[in-house]
Parts: sequence; structure tokens; C-alpha cells
Amino acid sequence: MKVTLISHTPNPEQTVAAAARLCYSAATIDGIMEKMDEASTRRMVNMLLGMGHESPIEHVSFTFGIEGVSRSLLAQITRHRIASFSVQSQRYVSESGFEYVTPPEIAGIPEALDIYDDFMKRADEDYNRLTELLYNKYTDGVEDEGRKKQLRKKAIEDARFVLPNACTTKMILTMNARSLYNFFDHRCCYRAQWEIRQVANRMLELVREVAPTLFAGAGAPCESGQCNQGKMSCGMTIPQRREKGLL
Amino acid sequence: MKVTLISHTPNPEQTVAAAARLCYSAATIDGIMEKMDEASTRRMVNMLLGMGHESPIEHVSFTFGIEGVSRSLLAQITRHRIASFSVQSQRYVSESGFEYVTPPEIAGIPEALDIYDDFMKRADEDYNRLTELLYNKYTDGVEDEGRKKQLRKKAIEDARFVLPNACTTKMILTMNARSLYNFFDHRCCYRAQWEIRQVANRMLELVREVAPTLFAGAGAPCESGQCNQGKMSCGMTIPQRREKGLL
Amino acid sequence: MKVTLISHTPNPEQTVAAAARLCYSAATIDGIMEKMDEASTRRMVNMLLGMGHESPIEHVSFTFGIEGVSRSLLAQITRHRIASFSVQSQRYVSESGFEYVTPPEIAGIPEALDIYDDFMKRADEDYNRLTELLYNKYTDGVEDEGRKKQLRKKAIEDARFVLPNACTTKMILTMNARSLYNFFDHRCCYRAQWEIRQVANRMLELVREVAPTLFAGAGAPCESGQCNQGKMSCGMTIPQRREKGLL
Amino acid sequence: MKVTLISHTPNPEQTVAAAARLCYSAATIDGIMEKMDEASTRRMVNMLLGMGHESPIEHVSFTFGIEGVSRSLLAQITRHRIASFSVQSQRYVSESGFEYVTPPEIAGIPEALDIYDDFMKRADEDYNRLTELLYNKYTDGVEDEGRKKQLRKKAIEDARFVLPNACTTKMILTMNARSLYNFFDHRCCYRAQWEIRQVANRMLELVREVAPTLFAGAGAPCESGQCNQGKMSCGMTIPQRREKGLL
Repeated sequence: MKVTLISHTPNPEQTVAAAARLCYSAATIDGIMEKMDEASTRRMVNMLLGMGHESPIEHVSFTFGIEGVSRSLLAQITRHRIASFSVQSQRYVSESGFEYVTPPEIAGIPEALDIYDDFMKRADEDYNRLTELLYNKYTDGVEDEGRKKQLRKKAIEDARFVLPNACTTKMILTMNARSLYNFFDHRCCYRAQWEIRQVANRMLELVREVAPTLFAGAGAPCESGQCNQGKMSCGMTIPQRREKGLL
Repeated sequence: MKVTLISHTPNPEQTVAAAARLCYSAATIDGIMEKMDEASTRRMVNMLLGMGHESPIEHVSFTFGIEGVSRSLLAQITRHRIASFSVQSQRYVSESGFEYVTPPEIAGIPEALDIYDDFMKRADEDYNRLTELLYNKYTDGVEDEGRKKQLRKKAIEDARFVLPNACTTKMILTMNARSLYNFFDHRCCYRAQWEIRQVANRMLELVREVAPTLFAGAGAPCESGQCNQGKMSCGMTIPQRREKGLL
Repeated sequence: MKVTLISHTPNPEQTVAAAARLCYSAATIDGIMEKMDEASTRRMVNMLLGMGHESPIEHVSFTFGIEGVSRSLLAQITRHRIASFSVQSQRYVSESGFEYVTPPEIAGIPEALDIYDDFMKRADEDYNRLTELLYNKYTDGVEDEGRKKQLRKKAIEDARFVLPNACTTKMILTMNARSLYNFFDHRCCYRAQWEIRQVANRMLELVREVAPTLFAGAGAPCESGQCNQGKMSCGMTIPQRREKGLL
Repeated sequence: MKVTLISHTPNPEQTVAAAARLCYSAATIDGIMEKMDEASTRRMVNMLLGMGHESPIEHVSFTFGIEGVSRSLLAQITRHRIASFSVQSQRYVSESGFEYVTPPEIAGIPEALDIYDDFMKRADEDYNRLTELLYNKYTDGVEDEGRKKQLRKKAIEDARFVLPNACTTKMILTMNARSLYNFFDHRCCYRAQWEIRQVANRMLELVREVAPTLFAGAGAPCESGQCNQGKMSCGMTIPQRREKGLL
């Protein structure tokens, strides 16, 4: 898995602070921007987050590159709808010789790992065999090389039905800070599935480097004592989590 | 594949027509609703669609049950973000003995079909073997039956990495009419992938039964002569499509 | 102010319960729907809301008619973006003789009420005078009656710049249950502006009539003891609110 | 009116091009980014826009400061829902001595302009008088200066019901490029209301300075010959528009 922060709104905290200030001020926008030095920016961002006034944090967005993650992760991450995704297509890009994610729990059982690796090898072989059978049928009698190239895509379109969830994909993902807060809330939680939790934690580290005040309170709600379910959803109390070194 | 229309806003066309009328009228809402008989409803809906005034059609939404479709389809359909989805979870529901979608092109090549069916059998076996190995490890020394049940879920969470795209899923999906128009525009197109195109065409039939005027112009843009790309994206002209019996 | 529930997804609680059930069940959709009797529906909806699993409640939406509310209210309510609006247009509908909202606090001070009513009279007069001056200029030398009708619209388009916030409007508004929960959370709060709070409370009453279990916990967060700010945002503690008869 | 581009995703066209490229490429994200020089970026962006493949342009967003615009404009611009707004509040900021927008058509008729300016003067006076009457009532017997300051806000909350549409406001607005395309499509149209059309045209100039290829085809659809209504919605044919110097 590789997660990088490709791009983001410049000066994210100052932008958020100015937008928030504007709501309550008679000053001009230039005037507001000028007054937003580091200290007043930090103060304003902290005030905002403390009050739960969330809309100004939408003005800044963050673009990530995410690679080497499974199609299972893709199914989960694309459920976040206030987000923009560009994803490597299994219709257009051949998966011959595909890489795959191995769950650590499977890697930890030698017998399971053998089954797993053998299965992936078989999936790749059958993917290739099906691609060839389909391609041969489609190109029977076709001479034109351009058309053949297109028909190869048509062949992989159906061959991909054998590809497993483990097969890796890559994507470029953009979310604004408000949507990210919601994402971290759900996906840094200790009950989230392990792979998306790793991605979410890495994304959180990356945005904290460029906007430490803005994302200070983001992440698993229990870590700031705010898991809002009667019992914590992981089935532990906060003291129990502390004792286990989870907080 | 099974697609059903579970529920929808009652009297969808009258609701849309009244909302549109309201924008340009000084009458009360009751007054507007009363005047919306069948003929004036149809006239108003046609006028709206003709003008491209799309926002009033958002007021009506349609809820579908979709079953027996592949996880590939799921990956595509969930990219539509102005929509609500509830999807059967591979983390919570065991896929042992899973059903799978067979692409017609694969079914049409006996050798390919054998490879395909064998592969699915193998995937099911390996899924079950991995589930057992993980479950046995997790439950080693555990007595509590409730906890064991939870640990079975933890086992399938990782075993599912071998499940193929072909594996079926089911979902409940809600979209409003405006989002549906966009969906049909992209997914009834002759270049859309075959499975989602089948689902989209079936959905379109179902909504036309309850809102024929509203959805009269929905579907593949070429069918109403409006494919807006310089060359039709399927590489054919409209006359060519007609000749091939595609229109 | 008049708020009516024009339409909604039929059997809203059963639909929500079935969608939620689907996520964790291997049964068919028909099978799930059949089992959703009143008791199991109620149980499932309560479980959902208790867990904070919000997405299934998106499947049901509610369409309201709202009349006799101010343009100030319009400015606030249209900030809710997961919603569909059709609003009477000040560009297309003449506001001559417009009705207006009078804030109760102004109505309670006779001197203020006189100023207020006089001002509204003046606004109407100036609106009409400006409309005529613009219309006369635009139609100078124009004979065609159809064109003149269009030019009257062009005249009111600019005359409306004198119309006050108090001027009433009407709209048709659709929100799904999840967006409504958020709406009630913010707009039923005791710190919300009085007019939108009245509208929100009335909307809540209306949806509770058709979906009492689903909306049991909706409304001002303090009323269910959940105002999540360090100090309650209205500056009172829950006991203080009780004492004042506010809870 | 003053419109400024406060901030935007750095290297917007390169970001869009890389996201688009990713969908069809087996290369790593680093590899894709490196290859995106100026020429290949331009080529990719042009190809995208030509195909109508819109999702990759969502990855870049633009933040504007907009000042000196009317509350009428606010009502229109906030109807765009795939956007983030922070707006000066009439509940928290006093409008005493408010500035206002004068429609050019009104400014062009001396008699109308007199009526208009007098009306605005009267609105300001009545706003101030109502504020004082309400404030005096609320603060009767109140000593605490902090509480008095709060009660002044409560006073302006109701006094603002007399404020006209012409009253200026200011806002910070963020949209991604896809939402901007839709915005320009509707609001640069010759039938759009004059004030929002000015704002939209100015915004378009500003984004073209930093992303000329990306926004080359944005704006009034007729200007690129694509107004998609049977008759052009402004009632003129393209040649007629040309003749009038409108194209």
C-alpha cells in the first residue's frame, strides 16, 4: 500500500479561518485575509472545531494517490459520496500478472498462505486463458490491428469476472476537510476493516503534516473520548482500551 | 439478475408538474395541486423536459431491489453518488456456496465455460478452507459461543479476499428522477458494460410503467438522436445503427 | 405560514427496515420484505437509530409544501444542500401587493408595528412605480402583446431589488430522512432563528404522523439530552431548561 | 461588485490530466505525474473535455471571494449545491448604513433612480429605528454589558426583515471544476439575470488565467455553438446573435 498527498488547497488553515471569520465580520475579504496571521488562524480554527461549525472547513480539499490496495477496499472507499475518484479501470487495463493484497492474518498461517498464493496463481492463469479464448473468438477473421486492440479490451472486460477481491488497484481521491473528518470518524475506528483503517490512518498523518490544527481532533472518536455509542462499538470501555495500549 | 421496483413517490408525474408550476405561479400550492389533472400534468412534464428545466424532477424518487448481479456491477453502480445504497455485506454474510454471474460470451465458448465453472468451484473451496483455518486460529481456547460467532465474521472478513468479481450480491438502491436520467444516459448507452446495461434497461422499463411521460426521453442518448459526441461513441452513425437493428 | 406534507415514500419505516436488514442477511429481498411486519420493523428501525447506522434511512423521502414564509427563511433553508427545492420566482411572478411576514417581537411593540407596516406599504408602492417606469421604457414603440408580456417580466426583474426580506414566498421541498434528521438537529435547536424553527417543528410533527418510530429521536438535540457542546449552545443547562419549561 | 480568486488547487491542469490518465494506465502514480509535461497535459485535458469524461475535472477546486453583490444574487448562487459557501450573516452583522446594488436599467432612468435611492435611505432609517425599539425592549432592566451585546444581535435579527434584496452581501465560495462548468453553462447564458451573469463571467475570466485549457470551452453554451434547445433559449439563432455582436 502506498498513500501520497498529491496536492491540496494552499494555506488550508488560513483559508478556513478567513471563511469562518467572514460570516461574523463587516470587514472586506482582503481585510480579513490580511489579519489572519498564524496565531489568529489557529485560534479561529480551534474555535470553529470546538463549536461544531463545520461548513467553513469545506473550502479546502486534499488530493491523494492510493496504490497497492485491494478491490475490497475500493468497494468500501467509494461508498463515501462527497468525494471525487479516478480509478484504474479493469475494463481498459489488463490485469495479467496482477499484484494482490495478502491479509496479515492469512500471511500468519503458513498453510493458509499457501492456499492463498496458489489461488492467486490460478486466478491469473484462468484470467489469461479466458482472455485468449475470448480474444480469439472476437478476432476470428479480423485483420485491422486497431480493431484487434479494441477487441482485446472487450476480451478482458469479461475475463475480469474471475479476478479476486485481493487484486490491487490504484486511484486518485479528492475530499474536502469536512468529508475527510467524516471519513476518519468511520474508517480510523478500531472496528473498521483493517485495510481501509490503514489507509485512513496514513491519510490522516499526511493531512496533519500540512494542517495540524485543522485535523488535531480527527480520527477514531474514542481517541478523543467521543465514541458516541452507549457501549463503545468495539466492545471495550475507554479504560479497557487504555489498558490494552490501544489509546 | 432480478430487478424490482420496491417503492416510489406516489403520483410522481403530478408531483413533478406541481413543483414546476409553482415556480411561475402566484397560486397557492393547494390550488396548483388541484388543477393538475392528467392532461395538464402531461403537458407540464413534457414542457419541462423540453426546456431542460431539470430540478423539479428531483422531487420524486424510486427504490429498486437488485439481486443476482456481480461485484463488478456493484463497483460501477456505486460510482453514482446522488443515490442511496444498502448492499449485502461480505464482512457479515458468509459467501460459502456463493452464486456467480456468467458472462454470456464466456457461456458461449464451451472450453471457456469449463474453465470458468471450475475456477468458481475452486474459489468456493479455498474460501471455505481459509475461513476454517482463520476461524480455528481465532477461536483457539475460546469457549463463549457468542464470541465464536463474532470470530466467524472476523474469519470471513479476510477469507473474502479470494472471492471473484463474478460473485453475486444484492442491494436496495434509491435515486431521484434527475439522477436516474443521468444514470440511464450513461448506462443504457450501447458502449456501457453489458451487465450494468441490462440492469439499467430493466430499471428504465420499470419506471416507465409508473411514470411514462416523465421517462419517455430517458435512455441511450442515440435512441432519441442526441448522442452528443462528434462521432457516436459506439463508432456507428445513427443510420448505421438503424440498419443493424440497434435503433 | 402553512406547511403541508404533500407526498412521501409509502411505508417508510418498512422500507428503511428492509434496507437495513439486507446488509446483514443472506435472504432474498422478497423474503426480507415479507418478514417485515410491524413489530420487526419497529425493532429494526430502533436498532438502526441506536447504532447510528444512518445510510438506510436515506431510502425514504418526504415532500413538503411551505407557504407564507419570508425570503429570509428561504436564504436559510436553501443552505441545506442534500435537498430539492422548487421556489416561486421573483423574476417570473409579480410581487405587486405582496404579503409579508411580521416578526412577533415587532408585532408586540405598537410603534414598531406602525413603522413596519408603513415600510411595507412604501415598498409595494415603490416596487409598482419602478415596474411601471421600467416597463414604459422597455415597451416604448413595441406593439406586439406577447413581447410586451415578456418585457413586463424584464421590468419586475429589476424592480424586485426593493423587495424586503419580509416578503413571503412559497416552495416545494423534498428531503430524505437522513437529511431531515440533520435539518431538525440544527433548525429545531432553541438557538435557531424563530421562523425556521417554527417551520422545522411543524415539519417534524408531520413526518412523525407517518413515521413515528423513525423520527422519535429527531429534533432539538437537547430534548433527548444530546446537545454535544461543552456548554449547551443556548447558554442553559438541561436542568435550567426544564425549570423554564423549555423541555 | 468585486470578485477575486483567493485560492485554488495548485497545477490544476496537471492534476486533472494525471487523474484521467490513471484510469487507462498500468503505470504508477509517480510515473504518471512525471510524464505530465505541459504538452501532454494539454493534450490529455483536451481529449477529456472532447469525450465528455467529466469526473477527473472534479479533483481541482477554486475558492472565490465575492463582495458587493445583492441578496438576490445570493438567493440564486446558493441554489448551486455542489459548492461550499461562507456568507456574511445578517443575524450577526449589523446592516446599519448598508450599501446596495443599483440595477443599471434603474440607474438609467433619473426618476427611477430617485425613487430607488430614497427607498434605500428609508429602509436604512427604518432598520435603525426598529433595531433601537427592539433593543430597548429587550434590554429593559438588563445591566450586564455582555448580555446587552447579545441582545443587540437579537434586535437586528428581526429588524433585518425590512432589508431589501438590493442590500449587499459578501461570501467565500468554493466549487470544483465540474461544478463550475455547470455553473458557467447556466449563469453565463444570455438569459441569466444580469448580476449573476456578471459574476459568472468574472469568475470564468479568473479561472481561465490559471487553467486556460481546462476552461477553454466553458461559458454560455451558444458561444461554442452548443445551446442544446430546439430554439435558442434567448429567442435568437446563432447567426442573429452574431449580427447583433453578441457572439
